[in-house]
Amino acid sequence: MSNKEDGPTTIEGLVCPVPLTHNRKIVLGHGSGGKMSQDLISRLFLPRFDNPALRAGDDAGVVQTSEFDRLAISTDSHVVWPLFFAGGDIGRLAVCGTVNDVAMMGANPQYLTTGFILEEGVEMSVLERIVASMQAAAAEAGVQIIAGDTKVVQKGKADGVYINTTGVGIISPGISIGGACARPGDSVILSGPIGDHGIAVLCARGELGFNAEVLSDIAPLNHLVAAMIQSGKSSDPQNAIHVLRDPTRGGVATALNEIARQSKVAIVIKENSIPIRPAVAAACELLGLDALYIANEGKLLAIVKPEAVDRVLVTMRNSRYGEESVIIGQVQEAPQGRVLMETAIGSTRVVDVLAGEMLPRIC
Amino acid sequence: MSNKEDGPTTIEGLVCPVPLTHNRKIVLGHGSGGKMSQDLISRLFLPRFDNPALRAGDDAGVVQTSEFDRLAISTDSHVVWPLFFAGGDIGRLAVCGTVNDVAMMGANPQYLTTGFILEEGVEMSVLERIVASMQAAAAEAGVQIIAGDTKVVQKGKADGVYINTTGVGIISPGISIGGACARPGDSVILSGPIGDHGIAVLCARGELGFNAEVLSDIAPLNHLVAAMIQSGKSSDPQNAIHVLRDPTRGGVATALNEIARQSKVAIVIKENSIPIRPAVAAACELLGLDALYIANEGKLLAIVKPEAVDRVLVTMRNSRYGEESVIIGQVQEAPQGRVLMETAIGSTRVVDVLAGEMLPRIC
Repeated sequence: MSNKEDGPTTIEGLVCPVPLTHNRKIVLGHGSGGKMSQDLISRLFLPRFDNPALRAGDDAGVVQTSEFDRLAISTDSHVVWPLFFAGGDIGRLAVCGTVNDVAMMGANPQYLTTGFILEEGVEMSVLERIVASMQAAAAEAGVQIIAGDTKVVQKGKADGVYINTTGVGIISPGISIGGACARPGDSVILSGPIGDHGIAVLCARGELGFNAEVLSDIAPLNHLVAAMIQSGKSSDPQNAIHVLRDPTRGGVATALNEIARQSKVAIVIKENSIPIRPAVAAACELLGLDALYIANEGKLLAIVKPEAVDRVLVTMRNSRYGEESVIIGQVQEAPQGRVLMETAIGSTRVVDVLAGEMLPRIC
Repeated sequence: MSNKEDGPTTIEGLVCPVPLTHNRKIVLGHGSGGKMSQDLISRLFLPRFDNPALRAGDDAGVVQTSEFDRLAISTDSHVVWPLFFAGGDIGRLAVCGTVNDVAMMGANPQYLTTGFILEEGVEMSVLERIVASMQAAAAEAGVQIIAGDTKVVQKGKADGVYINTTGVGIISPGISIGGACARPGDSVILSGPIGDHGIAVLCARGELGFNAEVLSDIAPLNHLVAAMIQSGKSSDPQNAIHVLRDPTRGGVATALNEIARQSKVAIVIKENSIPIRPAVAAACELLGLDALYIANEGKLLAIVKPEAVDRVLVTMRNSRYGEESVIIGQVQEAPQGRVLMETAIGSTRVVDVLAGEMLPRIC
């Protein structure tokens, strides 16, 4: 490696497209889903692996496998710690996390693969519980786990169980949902209270110092999405739903920023409209956390055409996992790529993406 | 958990289909690709996740996504240690390993996803080298990496870099290749010398005590497979190639046993016909290893109709990564599910699957 701070970096005869002059080592923030993750993607992965599906920067890559089939494909490795917490576990998380990423492209998730990395010495009963939980979540989502792999590493070379899941879904003809499709005038819907997953995991770590009695919201959202698409269609055959995104790592703030940047629009949200359970708000207050940046695993953001928003909202409220849906904001033309929040006291502030790493290994 | 040694085990209200009475903890052998891996699959994963694609037990799951498209989907997590070794690295391994698993179903691999689990503190230059190697391997194979994910765990909770890749390939109409398709009378072709990958990795660990000058054989075999299928077609439109399998973890011995069991046939191989480089043979001798059980990452076994075998063999020998192809045996009716070897001294012995774990973290 060259030690120069600028100019292309030579790696074994290859020229690295962009010099990674800043972080010389991987830090926890590179896995945060926030600014440092985006940096790693844009400076390292994207220049090397560049292709239209990856460049789109959505929750899943969309490809056309034949004249007839469009697939959404997404992958996530799950390293949540601890493995079990109130409302869920790594198994339910691994299934739902990937099902949701596929569903956010308007696809119908059908197949999952699962890759386990196990630490030597893990109790078989722990693995049994996790696999049973995966089975239940897959049954609820209606997906099949069609391929798997298990690797075991020596004691001290992992932390119990890590699970990768990759999902494949089919996108029906005519559907066009993606992060770049938000348009000025659209409404922003949030499917329920935020921060539950992050606080439930922190609570299981004993980091709160008290029991917050918060359950993780982990849930498969594909049936909710299917109902939303159906209801959108009946009010407008031309794709009433423009964007879907699940605000996981980096939270609602980071997800909205990604959309604003991809769509080259501004998103304005109202602080008062964002639902947060009292126990979550109290835990955030205590720990100095902002719920807007906390990971959710059973919520989605939908950006919907104005003509369809009432109908879609009613459908969401009538669906499991969408009962507490609310409109939290609007899409505007400017300032492009920014998220603004009208605060409870009447001022407006910029909401940025997550910068470092707030809660490592939350998913 | 119940402590009973027999009867169904109750897990949080669910009944575990088969009591896992033997190993109460995960050991390295569960990741070997041999008998203990198969045990974990058949006792834990398969009863929970059961579906036709998974039950087939092939290198990739095959699904029909529409009237028109059949896909082969495969996943592998890579935990090889060390990350770099003669002839390859974890990046090339992660791309080729999954490309090959997809190709072994006769599919044309087109899309990969990649999930990184990084240990805090990994040098960015190490990750850059790995990603550059993945790019080169993907270009050689002609696949696109369309989705990715990066997680970072604390120092001491992983071992540098783990990489999951999942691959999706399209199976052309009329192709029917799978572990259950071997028929008595078929020939068994091996695409070249065995054991190179395993010995190259051991050498990089310094476990040999000398430099064996063996290069890992890691290579994408999809172009070789495409040429074989084309050549098989010209001699017989009805699927001249019955089975393809890459003998990775567990080696040639384990792969042939899987095929014999899936196809309910016997496979008889000739010890003299199996190519092994002198340096690999010497290293095996020294370490007391049997090359038949050592992982390969750029070799395949093909089980081919007698009428087509000459033509397929010529095609293989004219292809990159197939120049040293040889016929190593035949398929017979009995004894069902067994692999037999005619030894150099004229006797016949049973070749079983790998029992425990010979070389942990070889891939």
